[in-house]
Parts: sequence; structure tokens; C-alpha cells
Amino acid sequence: MKIVLDAMGGDHAPQLVVDGAVQAAREWGTEIILVGQEGVVRAELAKHDTTGLSLSVVHASEVVTMEEHTMAVKGKKDSSLVVGMRLVKEGQADAFASAGNSGAVLAAAIFGLGRIRGIARPALASVYAAAPGLCLLLDIGANADCTPEYLLQFAIMGDAYARKLLGIERPRIGIVSNGEEEDKGSMLVRETYPLLKASELNFVGNVEGKDIGRGLADVVVTDGMTGNVIIKLTEGLVSFLARFFKRQFTGGWLNKLALVLMIPGLIVALPGLVLMLPAVGELRRRMDWREFGGAPLLGVDGVVVIGHGRSDAKAIKNMIRAAQTAVQQDVVGTIKEELARRGMDRRGSAA
Amino acid sequence: MKIVLDAMGGDHAPQLVVDGAVQAAREWGTEIILVGQEGVVRAELAKHDTTGLSLSVVHASEVVTMEEHTMAVKGKKDSSLVVGMRLVKEGQADAFASAGNSGAVLAAAIFGLGRIRGIARPALASVYAAAPGLCLLLDIGANADCTPEYLLQFAIMGDAYARKLLGIERPRIGIVSNGEEEDKGSMLVRETYPLLKASELNFVGNVEGKDIGRGLADVVVTDGMTGNVIIKLTEGLVSFLARFFKRQFTGGWLNKLALVLMIPGLIVALPGLVLMLPAVGELRRRMDWREFGGAPLLGVDGVVVIGHGRSDAKAIKNMIRAAQTAVQQDVVGTIKEELARRGMDRRGSAA
Repeated sequence: MKIVLDAMGGDHAPQLVVDGAVQAAREWGTEIILVGQEGVVRAELAKHDTTGLSLSVVHASEVVTMEEHTMAVKGKKDSSLVVGMRLVKEGQADAFASAGNSGAVLAAAIFGLGRIRGIARPALASVYAAAPGLCLLLDIGANADCTPEYLLQFAIMGDAYARKLLGIERPRIGIVSNGEEEDKGSMLVRETYPLLKASELNFVGNVEGKDIGRGLADVVVTDGMTGNVIIKLTEGLVSFLARFFKRQFTGGWLNKLALVLMIPGLIVALPGLVLMLPAVGELRRRMDWREFGGAPLLGVDGVVVIGHGRSDAKAIKNMIRAAQTAVQQDVVGTIKEELARRGMDRRGSAA
Repeated sequence: MKIVLDAMGGDHAPQLVVDGAVQAAREWGTEIILVGQEGVVRAELAKHDTTGLSLSVVHASEVVTMEEHTMAVKGKKDSSLVVGMRLVKEGQADAFASAGNSGAVLAAAIFGLGRIRGIARPALASVYAAAPGLCLLLDIGANADCTPEYLLQFAIMGDAYARKLLGIERPRIGIVSNGEEEDKGSMLVRETYPLLKASELNFVGNVEGKDIGRGLADVVVTDGMTGNVIIKLTEGLVSFLARFFKRQFTGGWLNKLALVLMIPGLIVALPGLVLMLPAVGELRRRMDWREFGGAPLLGVDGVVVIGHGRSDAKAIKNMIRAAQTAVQQDVVGTIKEELARRGMDRRGSAA
């Protein structure tokens, strides 16, 4: 299996992207094709010991920056995004992963790989982890405006993904709303409700903000704006709380004094603290987006994973793993089968 | 000043509602009219020492339950909601407060008090506190579907409220979106953007989920579904984290053992802990919705505050205070002046 990695994508590209690629190749023996400006990428690779690793470089002279408009990919035919997608399209690689400009990756994926027959719009999916139960949330930003048909398709794709990658036999499907009752929600939600109800999916109804990830549903669909707000709000809130407690231990003279006064006590309490730390560490890991590495773009005809712009080497490594697993589990094939089974595999059927 | 309190509204009505009313009357000398089934309300009042307090009861034979449809108020002319709104309409009281069925309170307010001229839809506003900077978020649930005109009106009302009640001279106004750039967001957001930009408001642009309450804007507008998801997601996340840490200290034999092992250390660390606790307590208070008591319903022609269904006595007390302050600061008058100044004070102008 070969994974194409956009060496130029992300706030820390190419340095940490190459670093993450080297780690993935070393740890899992993954074959990685780094696409980007060859000189720059090779210079980064030279900083690592890559003996025995399967890391190749494919040149792409142009770069789509994080600030550029989505449609910049149209004009940049020799960008890492366009060249990388072509490698997948031509069967020279099995998946594409990038921590770059997500709108541009989405556009490049649609132009380069095309949509799966029957899917009007691809959706970005993310595992929502800041809660007691994991759940798959989609769309988290590919489509700010959606129709009930899009949301139904998201649900079908999310269902396939959850079965294959989360190992849930019959995923419970929910839809984000502002109330549990069937008549609650925006017009979009109220019009999607009967479609989901009539589908063969295991639809469990509306899911309120407070219940996302509380184990009521395994897959939760929403429009890309609401999904994006959910993901980013969670990120902001968790980082605010983490900063608050950190400041409690380090900021200001009063807090510093408190910490100094606590030192003897903490030493005495050490055995108890040691017993408690694993669970706190476990929570921290679970809520760390770098563990998941990236969000799969479901609905394009090929495996594409989009990472956080702020990805470090660890996040890049995990993004590569996410792409690898999606290939192994044949997520694209499963979505296609599912659509065919439902007679929905027609081009433009719900566009 | 007289505040009408819906004695029958909320999960813990009438018991904790009456309890909260007694506390408010005692603490601030507020004159409170309890509206509800007289026998039941008087029986609750009898449990308290109300000597010298200004607490009266107005009978309303019917009750709109938490589960009933919004429109139930239409059929229940003698419910606490309808009777209570009438007292405000007729000038016998200055404000109405309820922790009951929020959709029904909204409907009763619109039917009973009417909308302010120029306001197409009233909005529920809430102070978002789970962040470094407080900000006013609206709409948090009154209108699942909105138009750009509604959002502009929400911004004007939020601006007036923030000036009067939060004491911010020139509030910065933002709109929730899935990206900072002007071209990001749903069609609703993209169509609202130029209206806000053209207004005389201090519009600062799009606010992403991660930046809500991060001090970029003092007033953030959004449609009622997104706003509701934001408020409830925050509530769910904070309570999940609180439960997690609580469980760390109390749940399971390993955690209990850890706690026992830590006791001597905690005793030694006491001086430091004591120095740290105020800030943690402060954060806890800030993020406690019961401190704010209720969300003002802006845009109806009278002061209406809606509390959380789960309100306890403390929340009810603070809801009464919120209503009282809104009357003192003449929020309704300020909104009217603002609309008149802009020539927007026409009935149905943007409906």
C-alpha cells in the first residue's frame, strides 16, 4: 500500500510533515510518496536517517498556501494537491493525506478523484472524542449549506465508516438538533428527519448539543457549518480549561507561592497521584486531536484524509495511519456497495 | 418594581420556584407576584417565613407542562403563562420570569405582549461564560430558522443589551461562522455579513467556534439552532469534565485507594491549596448557569426572562434578579430608541 503525503501542506510544512512521514515509515513500514517541491523535501529528508524506509519524492513545483482561496487549485495544476490526487487517480497510490488548506484539498479531491456515484457532496467526518462515548460527526466543514438529501447521504457514508473503522455492527444514527422531539430543529433538520426514518439505517432521532458523544448515537450528521462550530467550540473550550489549570500552577506570584507551599504535600501524596495519573493521561490522549491525525473525506472516489493545519509530526504520523486503515478496510468500496444496494448509485441522483 | 414569577414553570416547580422567590424577596426586597394554582402555591409559601416580604399570589388554574407543544398556550387561556403576561401587559407588573417550557413562554410572550415595532422575531440571549471573556450570544433557541434581517435585528438588540447590562460602551459584534474570512459560512451568514458591515454597529466579522468568548466580540449573533447547540454542547462538555474529575476522586477502588494515599499529602499541601481554591471556585461560579439565572427574551414589548428547566432555588433567585436589572436598565426602551434612531421601528418592516 502506498500513501501520498502532501509535503507542503500545513502550518509546519515541510519540516514536521517530513518528520511525521519518517516516523510512520519507521513504525509501520508504510510506503509513503512525498509530493512537493523536490529540493525542499529532499533537504528535509536528509535530516533524518531513512535507511531501509520506503520514502519516495514526487516533484510538484507549486504550493497552495493555507490562506489561498479554495479555487486556487484550479490554477495550480502543478501543485502538490493536484499532482498528489493524480497519483491516486492513476492507481500509483492508494490514498492521499494532507494537513494543508482543507477547502483546497476538498476541491482538489473532487476535481482529481471525482465523487462516488450517488453522492452529491463529499463530507468531512471526525471522531468526536470529548465525551464519554466516541461518535462519528459529519459534516464538519465541507458543506456550509446542505439539503436533506446530502444529510441522508452523509448518514449512509457515516454508517459504512462506523461499521468498517469503528467496528460497530449496526451504528445508531442521529441528527444534530435543538431539541429531542421530532418537530424540533431547523427546516433542514425537520425535512431530513423523515428521510432518515424511512431509510434502513438505525436512526435514533435528534441529538441535542449536550448529548453529542454521550452514547446516544454512534454517527451524528449535521450541516458543515454546525459541525464545524461543534468541533472548534470543543477545541476552544478544552484548550481554555487546560490553560486555566496550567495558569493555576504556574502564573502569577500568588499561584507560584501556592505551588511552592504545596510541594511537600505533593511529595507525600505521590503514591496516590501516581495511581491517578493514568486516567487523566488517558482522557488527555482521547481529547487530543493529534491522536486521530485527520478527518476522512467521505464521498470522493478514493481515500483522502485531511489533517489539522496545526499538525505536528505526531499528528502527521497518525494521519498517515488513518489513511492506511481506510484503505485496508475499503471504506470507499463499502460506501459504493451500500449505495448500490439502495439503488442510489446513480450520477446526480440527488444533486 | 413588581416581577411576575411563573410558579408552575420548571422541573422543580412549584417547590424550588417558591423557595427562590422567597430568597429573592428577602435578599433584595423584590416585590414578586407568584402566578399559578393558588392552593398549591400558598401551600408552598406556608413552608417559609414570609413575614415582611412582598409576595402575592395571582391564581391561574391551568398549567403548560414542559412536554407540551409550544402552541398549548393558545388553548390554555388561564395558564400561569397567559395570566402572567397579561399582568405585565396591563401594567400591573414590570417583568415576567419563568423556568417553564421555553417554547411556550416565547409563544405566550409574543401573543401577550407583542413584538417591539421593527422586530420580526424575538431572540433568546445568553451570556456565554465558559471562556476567558464573557460575551452575549443570541439567538440561543427561539428561532431555529433565521433570515439575514432577523440576525441584523438580533445584533441591534444585543448591542443595546450589552451597553445597558454589561456596561460595554461600544460592543464589538460578531457572527458565528465556520471560518474567519468574509466568504466563509452558510448562505445565511454570507448574506448577513454585508448587512452587519453596512450597519452602524461595531461589526468585527466572523467568529469561529473556538473563538466564542475569547474576547474577539462582545455580542455574537447566530441562528437559534446553532446558538442552542453552542450553549448545550458547552453545558454537556463542562458537566462531562466535572464528572470525570469527580469520578477520579471518588469512583472505583483504585481511585479510592489513591485518594486515601493522598490524604497526608493533601494535609501538608493545605496552605497552597487554600491559596489556589478561590480561582477554581471563581471559574466554577462563572461557568455555573445558575449564576445568570435566565436568558432575556429580547424583542418582545416587555421584560421577559426564561430560566433553565432544571432551575433550583438559587437559579430562580438569580432569574428574578436578571428580570429586575433588565427593568431598571430599561432594556426594552433602549431597543425601541435604537430602532427608531435607525428608522427601523415599523411594524413588519423586515418580517
